[in-house]
Amino acid sequence: MSDDSDKGPSRRGFLGAMAAGGALAAGGARAASDPLITEVQPWNQLLGEGVDETPYGLPIRFESDVVRRDVPWLTADPISSVNFTPIHALEGTITPQGCAFERHHAGAIELAKPDYRLMINGLVDRQMVFTYADLERFPRETHVYFMECAANSGMEWAGAQLNGCQFTQGMIHNMEYVGVPVRLLLEEAGVKPEGKWVLAEGADAAGMTRSIPLEKMLDDCLVAFKANGEALRKEHGYPARLVVPGWEGNMWVKWLRRLEVGDEPWEQREETSKYTDVMADGSARKWTWVMDAKSVITSPSPQAPITHGKGPLVITGLAWSGRGTIRRVDVTTDGGITWHEARLSGPSFSKALHRFHFDVDWDGSEMILQSRAIDDTGYVQPTKDQLRAFRGENSIYHNNGIQTWLVMPDGRVENVEIS
Amino acid sequence: MSDDSDKGPSRRGFLGAMAAGGALAAGGARAASDPLITEVQPWNQLLGEGVDETPYGLPIRFESDVVRRDVPWLTADPISSVNFTPIHALEGTITPQGCAFERHHAGAIELAKPDYRLMINGLVDRQMVFTYADLERFPRETHVYFMECAANSGMEWAGAQLNGCQFTQGMIHNMEYVGVPVRLLLEEAGVKPEGKWVLAEGADAAGMTRSIPLEKMLDDCLVAFKANGEALRKEHGYPARLVVPGWEGNMWVKWLRRLEVGDEPWEQREETSKYTDVMADGSARKWTWVMDAKSVITSPSPQAPITHGKGPLVITGLAWSGRGTIRRVDVTTDGGITWHEARLSGPSFSKALHRFHFDVDWDGSEMILQSRAIDDTGYVQPTKDQLRAFRGENSIYHNNGIQTWLVMPDGRVENVEIS
Repeated sequence: MSDDSDKGPSRRGFLGAMAAGGALAAGGARAASDPLITEVQPWNQLLGEGVDETPYGLPIRFESDVVRRDVPWLTADPISSVNFTPIHALEGTITPQGCAFERHHAGAIELAKPDYRLMINGLVDRQMVFTYADLERFPRETHVYFMECAANSGMEWAGAQLNGCQFTQGMIHNMEYVGVPVRLLLEEAGVKPEGKWVLAEGADAAGMTRSIPLEKMLDDCLVAFKANGEALRKEHGYPARLVVPGWEGNMWVKWLRRLEVGDEPWEQREETSKYTDVMADGSARKWTWVMDAKSVITSPSPQAPITHGKGPLVITGLAWSGRGTIRRVDVTTDGGITWHEARLSGPSFSKALHRFHFDVDWDGSEMILQSRAIDDTGYVQPTKDQLRAFRGENSIYHNNGIQTWLVMPDGRVENVEIS
Repeated sequence: MSDDSDKGPSRRGFLGAMAAGGALAAGGARAASDPLITEVQPWNQLLGEGVDETPYGLPIRFESDVVRRDVPWLTADPISSVNFTPIHALEGTITPQGCAFERHHAGAIELAKPDYRLMINGLVDRQMVFTYADLERFPRETHVYFMECAANSGMEWAGAQLNGCQFTQGMIHNMEYVGVPVRLLLEEAGVKPEGKWVLAEGADAAGMTRSIPLEKMLDDCLVAFKANGEALRKEHGYPARLVVPGWEGNMWVKWLRRLEVGDEPWEQREETSKYTDVMADGSARKWTWVMDAKSVITSPSPQAPITHGKGPLVITGLAWSGRGTIRRVDVTTDGGITWHEARLSGPSFSKALHRFHFDVDWDGSEMILQSRAIDDTGYVQPTKDQLRAFRGENSIYHNNGIQTWLVMPDGRVENVEIS
């Protein structure tokens, strides 16, 4: 799973570098003088909490800052809003459900399993209605997928605006989904030869509806009921949501209640006036579903500054592609003059988040940090300027441009753009 | 990732089978008469909860039974006890931290990052003390590993005792751990040539200590600080624990505060009077660290009975091996007369949980369910009788025998043994 090759600074030099940086007294010296290791502390002798006190555990109180956040001015009201994943504070590839990005258009509803129904209608041989118990009787699949909002980084089209990678890239999560292939459900209903599209509809008051090509539905879409092992949380669509791997999050309809088969797209609000890219000349790009390759350095970043001074520094981030796996991630510390290949560490699944690490020995001077993802199709993540040259600045969607962080000598980090 | 081959009953026959079983009215008929899909419901028109109300989300109230449970009579008191994962209610491979098996011997302590110290002493060139911030400066790795208590299924040596797979096999979890290889920390300290063993010690009042061969520590052990993306929960050893892949959970010392290098094992309480297998003749097997290949059907199982009557049924479970990946899982519904290869679905990582599925068309008659794991070394999970013939019944540890569930015609399931 992990690439253990040591591309960073010499590990043997770690102690020296840290001592030189003043961040770490020599180990022996500290051992002799640090009461936290030489003297008995309260937690070394007092009983802690019993196992029966935590049937379902929560994060420890010291981690209360690792939470989803919204941006109050971004949407009209919190009922139709968006919660950003605190990616600056996470590691590895899995996003815990409790802090995983979610967005809904009429609030998160409470829909009990006995009340759940999924209808299949339209151009089918047999209209069908499945209960939740019915879904549990179909063969299941298990896949880790990222889910990214089309508007992730949307505010950045107009330049560096939001000071934190939680806000610039946090409309994404990565979970292990378990569900029934849509293909199996459609086979039960029997799709008529003229059926080419499927309308997915949610059960909440927003009545979210999106048109999805039948071919995609038959390929890898799931009606999912579990994420990271357990039931979907309320805000993630309990008891069942649509999973549309690699495609924009808006299509992953929550509280899924209907799949209608048709012969053409329905051109609903959420795929015409919304979630459509308007070009510089005012024309619209039609059907921009796939989330292209992208990456971001999650630490250091504006919400995760360097607090330990110069010396060894772990630069880490995430990369993903809606078209497959990530082949390589490059990192630069000088704004693109020189690029270095990062280590990919952890799982490498198609259409899932990848973790990268790049270990440096920071000399305390200013850095201009960027990362650049290359996916297994050979696609290279573009700069924001390259995107603007082709797309203009009329859209808030599908901004997968390279993110730049300015690291200052005092360790603070800012969202900037360079050209 | 998934094996989509259709080894179960014909999917085309699903509707027929369900109609025959009386579990599902024909779809069309239900669509015309079921108010839950034909009439507007409250959740279709009323606003739900806003995104700002769930900075950190919790399971929906309908899932309040999916929690860890202890067995009050199993240990002296809840402060030194064990919490079992509700594996009967989970799917996929990841265990959420909130319901992941944990055990501690003096309660779960609250140890803040600023108070954390990790000392390396003994046969080293330089004694060292690392702060939490120091650990964050070392290169990190990301790996999914299972962690299983040596006493998992321990009560089953004496026959089928605990009626639920949460209790018979739930002393296990599977999480994506991120941490610093112990190798890098030991390299900083410089292990002397005579150093062959490492003592790992915890910071809680239990002062848990285990002797671990240096070779294992240098191979794949981690000082981990994140699980499933976020910080370790308090009860999982926040802020840092030892990860000893594939080896018994007791060695994964939580709140890790010291690693001492020595030339021989320390023979501590937890590796002599505890966590040692006593054989039939009273002698003890020394050093039984690796958790051998094992599997269990998680549903149906005593806590997850069949409630939908005959017809299509998903049989699912978990398999794992401390020696590598799982090559194959076989399932029998007739107590071992005929075995069928199950589908492995989802990630297949070394020393991690694997998910298997076996789809059947249940005729409503009694079933005797078993699963049998084969790992990539070719090792085959033994029967309990095979284990007893070799090991006797004096031990409560390392019982990886085949689990049997009796499924009755009414769908209830019991823990039984057959010979």
